[in-house]
Amino acid sequence: MPTEVRVHFLPQLTSAEDLQGREIVVVDVLRATTTIACALSAGAARVIPCQEVDEARKRAEQLRSSEAASGGVLLGGERHGVKIEGFDLGNSPAEYTSERVAGKTIVFSTTNGTRAMRVGCRASRVWLGSFVNLSRVCAALRESLEVDIVCAGTEGRVSREDTLLAGALVDYLRSDENTLAAVIDDSARIAAECWRAAVGHPPDPIRLTEALRTSTGGRNLAQLDLEADIRFAARVDACPVLPCLDPRTGEIGL
Amino acid sequence: MPTEVRVHFLPQLTSAEDLQGREIVVVDVLRATTTIACALSAGAARVIPCQEVDEARKRAEQLRSSEAASGGVLLGGERHGVKIEGFDLGNSPAEYTSERVAGKTIVFSTTNGTRAMRVGCRASRVWLGSFVNLSRVCAALRESLEVDIVCAGTEGRVSREDTLLAGALVDYLRSDENTLAAVIDDSARIAAECWRAAVGHPPDPIRLTEALRTSTGGRNLAQLDLEADIRFAARVDACPVLPCLDPRTGEIGL
Repeated sequence: MPTEVRVHFLPQLTSAEDLQGREIVVVDVLRATTTIACALSAGAARVIPCQEVDEARKRAEQLRSSEAASGGVLLGGERHGVKIEGFDLGNSPAEYTSERVAGKTIVFSTTNGTRAMRVGCRASRVWLGSFVNLSRVCAALRESLEVDIVCAGTEGRVSREDTLLAGALVDYLRSDENTLAAVIDDSARIAAECWRAAVGHPPDPIRLTEALRTSTGGRNLAQLDLEADIRFAARVDACPVLPCLDPRTGEIGL
Repeated sequence: MPTEVRVHFLPQLTSAEDLQGREIVVVDVLRATTTIACALSAGAARVIPCQEVDEARKRAEQLRSSEAASGGVLLGGERHGVKIEGFDLGNSPAEYTSERVAGKTIVFSTTNGTRAMRVGCRASRVWLGSFVNLSRVCAALRESLEVDIVCAGTEGRVSREDTLLAGALVDYLRSDENTLAAVIDDSARIAAECWRAAVGHPPDPIRLTEALRTSTGGRNLAQLDLEADIRFAARVDACPVLPCLDPRTGEIGL
């Protein structure tokens, strides 16, 4: 029963101080939070987000030479939408099969998603939200008093796909009969209106896929021949897990 | 026939460099751009926006002792929604009657609107948009190739009332049969969806007033007993003028 719901269209519209002690959902629908939900759903032991590519390489190196990742370590992520040179995996959710990732530690670096996660470093809880785990996130938020939804955006620009997910969460929190969100900020209201306008009510899966496809992030993926990733990201509840980032360790697990 | 339409939910999401040479609309529905349209519609000679209160006082002093403002000079504006001490006028549009302002120069300072105007300092054209002059702005934009709509927001937070105006402009540009906006960014699409969801299509004046009333800016005004300003701001085309800020002189005229 949240008493306050705020949406931040971009990480730079909030700050670690602003989010201190609050419960937050980080959203990067195309594709980081979708891919991480997929990886953990496929049995990955944990995901370690790293801002920089070199930092990711070093972290993987350290983990491989320690006891801490006995199941194995994989490097995953993208720059400009494409798999990073020398990495094991890109940022397409379908790459993260149980054959590839079960029991493994994934050291992960993406352009926008990792930045959005860092702003939650002082939050009390950080969940990762996407359409593939929508219901799990909705259920978790019902227990929260103050919810902040932080959209990753695309290179500093507001992205419609993340706004749609934020809107879906706000819409759930407002319409659930057990929930009375006392204060919804203007951004949350805008996101909810955008969500209902784009996909209808109840949400139409075909319209959702189309909305993701026509977003800037979706158009970028289409240019890279990654349309399958868009369809994956639109599969509501396909990966029903609740990824949680521990702000102390910086690791994502279930 | 714009080829590109972008919306910036806050001035800090763009920059003077980003807007260089472009045609922009600055939006602060509650209340700066509404009040300025009202003042110019009532016959004010020009409006000079100043970021700081002291700057406004000095500018008014200079103008009063020069030949440049022979019709008289008035100080207008607000801090925390309230008229500034020693100023002639606050930020309520209804104060700016022809009896008070005709022929006068208004030196004007508000919290959010002035900041939004400053980001346009290198733009080729800067118009001021509000619901009271909506059709005039729409007509002007049809001539533009690249349109940027810059929302003022409220103390660094996205505001729904400005997003609604941005959405109304985007909706017009998309639906006008003579207009083909080739590229609409995600923020523009979000604003247009928010606009149609909030007020319906065709727009319902009662729903527009209600949407402004329930926005954060509207609630702030209601707390200050300024509900009349909300109703004024919702009067579509009540002040059919096209305020234009000259980036070289920093002055707003028709």
